[in-house]
Amino acid sequence: MSRSAVPPPVTAVMEAADDWLPARLAEVERRLAELAAGHGRELGEHAEATLTAGGKRLRPLLVLICAGPTAGDRTVRAAVAVELVHMATLVHDDVLDGAPVRRGRPTVVASAGRGAAIGVGDLLFSRAFAELTSAAATEGAAESGDGDGEVAELSSAAVALARGELAQRHDAYDTSLAEERYLHRCALKTARLFEAACRVGRLSSGQPGSDRIAAFGREIGLSFQLLDDVLDVTGPPERTGKARGTDLLDGTVTLPLILAIRRDHDLADVDLRGLDAGSAERACDRIAATGALDEVRDRARAGIERAKGLLGDDSFTPVERRLLSLIADGVVERYS
Amino acid sequence: MSRSAVPPPVTAVMEAADDWLPARLAEVERRLAELAAGHGRELGEHAEATLTAGGKRLRPLLVLICAGPTAGDRTVRAAVAVELVHMATLVHDDVLDGAPVRRGRPTVVASAGRGAAIGVGDLLFSRAFAELTSAAATEGAAESGDGDGEVAELSSAAVALARGELAQRHDAYDTSLAEERYLHRCALKTARLFEAACRVGRLSSGQPGSDRIAAFGREIGLSFQLLDDVLDVTGPPERTGKARGTDLLDGTVTLPLILAIRRDHDLADVDLRGLDAGSAERACDRIAATGALDEVRDRARAGIERAKGLLGDDSFTPVERRLLSLIADGVVERYS
Repeated sequence: MSRSAVPPPVTAVMEAADDWLPARLAEVERRLAELAAGHGRELGEHAEATLTAGGKRLRPLLVLICAGPTAGDRTVRAAVAVELVHMATLVHDDVLDGAPVRRGRPTVVASAGRGAAIGVGDLLFSRAFAELTSAAATEGAAESGDGDGEVAELSSAAVALARGELAQRHDAYDTSLAEERYLHRCALKTARLFEAACRVGRLSSGQPGSDRIAAFGREIGLSFQLLDDVLDVTGPPERTGKARGTDLLDGTVTLPLILAIRRDHDLADVDLRGLDAGSAERACDRIAATGALDEVRDRARAGIERAKGLLGDDSFTPVERRLLSLIADGVVERYS
Repeated sequence: MSRSAVPPPVTAVMEAADDWLPARLAEVERRLAELAAGHGRELGEHAEATLTAGGKRLRPLLVLICAGPTAGDRTVRAAVAVELVHMATLVHDDVLDGAPVRRGRPTVVASAGRGAAIGVGDLLFSRAFAELTSAAATEGAAESGDGDGEVAELSSAAVALARGELAQRHDAYDTSLAEERYLHRCALKTARLFEAACRVGRLSSGQPGSDRIAAFGREIGLSFQLLDDVLDVTGPPERTGKARGTDLLDGTVTLPLILAIRRDHDLADVDLRGLDAGSAERACDRIAATGALDEVRDRARAGIERAKGLLGDDSFTPVERRLLSLIADGVVERYS
């Protein structure tokens, strides 16, 4: 149930986009690098690595595309803020999971310890909200809608993320976990921030955040998570950057296991607390053998189709339709 | 270097205040209880205990007083937001320190584990910003200044808090720590949020946040921290709720030790990493024997006097002057 394993559909989107999108994304990267450099020795090289390690930048891309070609600095800062919240949760997740590596680099917790990692996460999180208000200040709050909508949206998404994380801890090791509960957790932990990215993009360019764009964000976010959970079972580790069965080892029950148990009841008796790397891999093989993974992939693809279906509406410009479709396809393609 | 050991000057302030202040503080408590109850099983009883365990409510009081008798719901929510940020940092601090007890109750990390405690801290933190924006929504953002100033102020304070925490980790076990570095850390870790409480109070009632009120907040925040660090050395544990020398055991070098080393050079050679409860108590006795604690107390009292001196200016109403003076005195009295 990590949220990082898959490389981005960035290339395809960039090729399809006019110059404005790559230019705007470069500004986002510049700003992230500036923040990493600007915190002096408190932040240290650990957070700098996190901030500049690249990653998919899927959420900032959604912000930028949903804001459109005429959006300005306020949108760039909103994109930065969304990415900062995402990175803060990654850093804290890694503390919880004791993850040694992310994106091929040592995690903050692995290289600097738990204390530094909690602090770095808190710092990234705080910076996200500071970034949104400096955006408002830059553009002249009074005229342009003042950034308050973005703060409301992002803070609400951050609340959802934390609740999702707590739900995951609460449900750990429970192989009788209901599918609905799993889906609710994905909604909180992953889909909500994708939704917020889309809405914040709209708001930051002075447009209303429509229900359609919110639904689009949620659908691709959920599909993204489903496919990420499939990858945890299939690997290969060289591609995912983590061992197969990492979720199982953490006690995190995901849809592949839930559906596999319906087909192979004995899987419910696997003692997740007693797993080691070898037995976790064997459990992955058993899950795969049930055919449950295809069912999860089908659901994810159906979600992507629903998301693309939402785009055929006049809430979207032709450019948005094209770029958001590519983003949606990219979420699936990277897994096929 | 904990921020919780001292009971509040609430009683004296309440007696001096007209009905509006106790009424407003009761609204803050009600709202905190509402938030604790409203998160369902994700938040769980652990965070509920944290939210409703009482504590000094010193920061919310500052918000309320600086906003004044005519302030409304937006101020109450600002007070709630400041307290939520404070509590989030306490919950995360306890993870770092492995603290078993706070305010006489088991900490979140002790009762629910590290994962839950990181999640609860993140949740409280996110709720703080959500609270500020719902305040703006309630009051009608356009007319009354929209809460964006409060978000800017609180997020900036939260950045400072995280930087202070990281600085403290970075400096751990370094008995050659310079006084300036220690003071800088206190400014980030404690004084900044007191300052923000004062400014946010002003902003939430549509008044500008003056430099004087900011300086007042910083001065009492710093004095508060100095005296808290003295209490860590003196105890008694029945009053502070933690063992003497807890800071030393955590490797946290504070002003009492820095000044004591100037008077007893051999203290610089104490191996903080090798301390246990008994040797930490003995180190506390050695620090006390140098007379350094009186010097720290004197500095704290001087800070309180400077803070009160700032009140003799027409930026403050007579009511504010009276109540803020009592708050300032309360910070010292509780330690004498």
